[in-house]
Amino acid sequence: MERTPIHRLREFIGQKVTVQGWLQTLRDQKKMQFLIIRDRTGLVQVAFWKANDPALAERISTLGTESAVTITGTVIDNEIVKLNGLEIQLESLEIVNAAEAPVPFEPFGDSLPSIDFRLDWRYLDLRRAENLLLFTVQTTVEQAMREYWLQHDFMEIHSPKIMGTPSESGAELFEVAYFERKAYLAQSPQFYKQMAMAAGFERVFEIGPVFRADPSFTSRHMTEFTGVDMEMSWIDSHEDVMAFTERWIQYVYQVVKDKHGDEIREKLGVEIKVPTVPFPRISMHDAYVVLKQVGYALPPEKKGDLDPGGERAMADYVKKTYDHDFFFLIDWPITVRPFYHMRHADRPDLTKSFDLIAGGLEIATGAQREHRPDILLQQAFEKGLHQEPIQFYLDFFRYGCPSHGGFGLGLSRFMMVMLGINNIRETVYIFRGPTRLNP
Amino acid sequence: MERTPIHRLREFIGQKVTVQGWLQTLRDQKKMQFLIIRDRTGLVQVAFWKANDPALAERISTLGTESAVTITGTVIDNEIVKLNGLEIQLESLEIVNAAEAPVPFEPFGDSLPSIDFRLDWRYLDLRRAENLLLFTVQTTVEQAMREYWLQHDFMEIHSPKIMGTPSESGAELFEVAYFERKAYLAQSPQFYKQMAMAAGFERVFEIGPVFRADPSFTSRHMTEFTGVDMEMSWIDSHEDVMAFTERWIQYVYQVVKDKHGDEIREKLGVEIKVPTVPFPRISMHDAYVVLKQVGYALPPEKKGDLDPGGERAMADYVKKTYDHDFFFLIDWPITVRPFYHMRHADRPDLTKSFDLIAGGLEIATGAQREHRPDILLQQAFEKGLHQEPIQFYLDFFRYGCPSHGGFGLGLSRFMMVMLGINNIRETVYIFRGPTRLNP
Repeated sequence: MERTPIHRLREFIGQKVTVQGWLQTLRDQKKMQFLIIRDRTGLVQVAFWKANDPALAERISTLGTESAVTITGTVIDNEIVKLNGLEIQLESLEIVNAAEAPVPFEPFGDSLPSIDFRLDWRYLDLRRAENLLLFTVQTTVEQAMREYWLQHDFMEIHSPKIMGTPSESGAELFEVAYFERKAYLAQSPQFYKQMAMAAGFERVFEIGPVFRADPSFTSRHMTEFTGVDMEMSWIDSHEDVMAFTERWIQYVYQVVKDKHGDEIREKLGVEIKVPTVPFPRISMHDAYVVLKQVGYALPPEKKGDLDPGGERAMADYVKKTYDHDFFFLIDWPITVRPFYHMRHADRPDLTKSFDLIAGGLEIATGAQREHRPDILLQQAFEKGLHQEPIQFYLDFFRYGCPSHGGFGLGLSRFMMVMLGINNIRETVYIFRGPTRLNP
Repeated sequence: MERTPIHRLREFIGQKVTVQGWLQTLRDQKKMQFLIIRDRTGLVQVAFWKANDPALAERISTLGTESAVTITGTVIDNEIVKLNGLEIQLESLEIVNAAEAPVPFEPFGDSLPSIDFRLDWRYLDLRRAENLLLFTVQTTVEQAMREYWLQHDFMEIHSPKIMGTPSESGAELFEVAYFERKAYLAQSPQFYKQMAMAAGFERVFEIGPVFRADPSFTSRHMTEFTGVDMEMSWIDSHEDVMAFTERWIQYVYQVVKDKHGDEIREKLGVEIKVPTVPFPRISMHDAYVVLKQVGYALPPEKKGDLDPGGERAMADYVKKTYDHDFFFLIDWPITVRPFYHMRHADRPDLTKSFDLIAGGLEIATGAQREHRPDILLQQAFEKGLHQEPIQFYLDFFRYGCPSHGGFGLGLSRFMMVMLGINNIRETVYIFRGPTRLNP
């Protein structure tokens, strides 16, 4: 018999249905048993008169919560039932996969164990309604991102994650044993999305894994995360990239609000607010002035850069001054930016780059790239890089590479900000950190 | 001035426009220069009277082909011009990035160098019209795949590519130096998409990189490729997976035919033929009977399996018998399938699995998975696996995991078949093989 999703049961009042899902709770009374069954679409109460089949009643009473079951029964309109005013009168039950008892933790229990324990049993943790919603919304987010890109003539690429040479500075790089030699995991699709510009693809995007051998244990860092990258050709400056980015984000927020706004408010207490464009742009120079004014003291080692506290202080200022949750921090000093960021012609100490700060968190970094090979090589030397490991990259600019720029955004950070979640470990399907490779 | 894409120039007859692209050819005559400029949307002829600006004429005459340029001029309707009957009368030209001369090879030349040489200069190779079309079609393919999944309530996941233990057999595995310990690159999202079933996500998909330390140098193998994976819960058998898969493929073909059918016929000489459903299903047992009939001798070491020649022989048989380009080879012996494939209850020597053969090439493998933990463990033992490295995976089945199955498909193989391309190195953005990590 075909499976009926729980949210459609009301269409089947008086009819026999098959429902498949998880036993969320069991109330075992003297004459009756009440099971709450959950599938991805909702919950339903199932009632069983023990006298109808004492052997089945016996099996049900020993059934562990979270077991996977297939039940068949008749849908009854019953206004006494709190759960949507209907119940299923059970006729048969098949145990598809019995849960051992007790479960490591009850995903629908009154209190939750630590995040670390929940990550050990991530699949139980993902059964919680908040998590199902999070990954449902993330699915919508990614599709909306792609829709907007495709509406604007972007092509999708999949760049290689195994690289033959250490890119960029060589720091935070994972080494791979590649047959008889060494290889490295890509820290970003940066070089290869720029190659697409040299290939004449003009506009590309990629959503895929990036790897950082970063030993930090903060609530914002992971050693592997999903990067959301784009690159576009024939731009005049980083302003073109920002102008695209803010409209793209506005579109994604609008789609999410339309599709999930009510459920997000209900289950997470968060109001999805579609940002207005343009987002405020604040130069790093002005940010330093503001931070001084508001009395925020940056740690001295952060010269030219911002620390997370500085980002939050700036976000507070932007919220107060412009009533905006997003802003671009622009024109970063060359000292804190990679060699391939283009520099202002009239201010060679400043890059044509930006960070996108959302809800006080840096979620994206972008720039116009230097596409003139002689200047690019010189900037690499200035950063102390050797030519040989990046020669394959420098070669991209030798035979007609247009001006271009783009950004890289962290998907899980985007979800943190959108849904108001404080720890990135809660927003990623499976977390990877310096000491966590499990499950 | 805003950029006008070349395919829209006819809307601007008599007007001044800016076009940005690559210098494909230059005819330098006594009084005039004719430039063919290319962008992603087409080609246009640009005419320049040298007398108008001899200095500019001089710069143009030394300009290497494939240079990236911005030109401004007036669009003229001119029926003498073979290229769409229009040309631009050049007023100004800016060299955005001059190509060194000579280029390693002319992407639009009369003959092409070897695939290996072209891979060294992949970005020049990607400029060819066939390649631009290939990756444009691939973009459509992926979006159509996702559309169909989303229409059928699938969620998108991004599973980790770094794993703490060697999965499956441990063969063909890349090792990663992960801080103070060893880790491994995922050979497929298999275990983690199954985890999503245990998490109650019910239906998931993922398009992402998979890694195989496979030393082969065939035209079908890569050490890194884009895997297209799905997994669905509450199935009765592998038939449910196949029934979904064939409709999903039919949808993708239909979208591609509608959107790019004419251009594919024109540029590649390939007719996109939307397959009818159901695809033929042939058991491995019957395939062996057929191969014997047609006189195809399998190499003895391939017992229970098929070799590429056998796949092609079967494809010929299916084409003749059913007039179909796709077929499912089903019910493979357990000897050639991994431990997690479910077995037929009445034929414990056969798995509930399939390969999808398209155009004589295996493009996908799927199965119903074994979701009963005791049987799963026993099957792992039979395959000689140790429990400890796969314990994290076995744990997924302890607390209520529904029945489920899915498939993994190779994106570049799919593109080979769809567009009639013989070498996978031609269909992947950047090829990775045992001896190729460049660019």
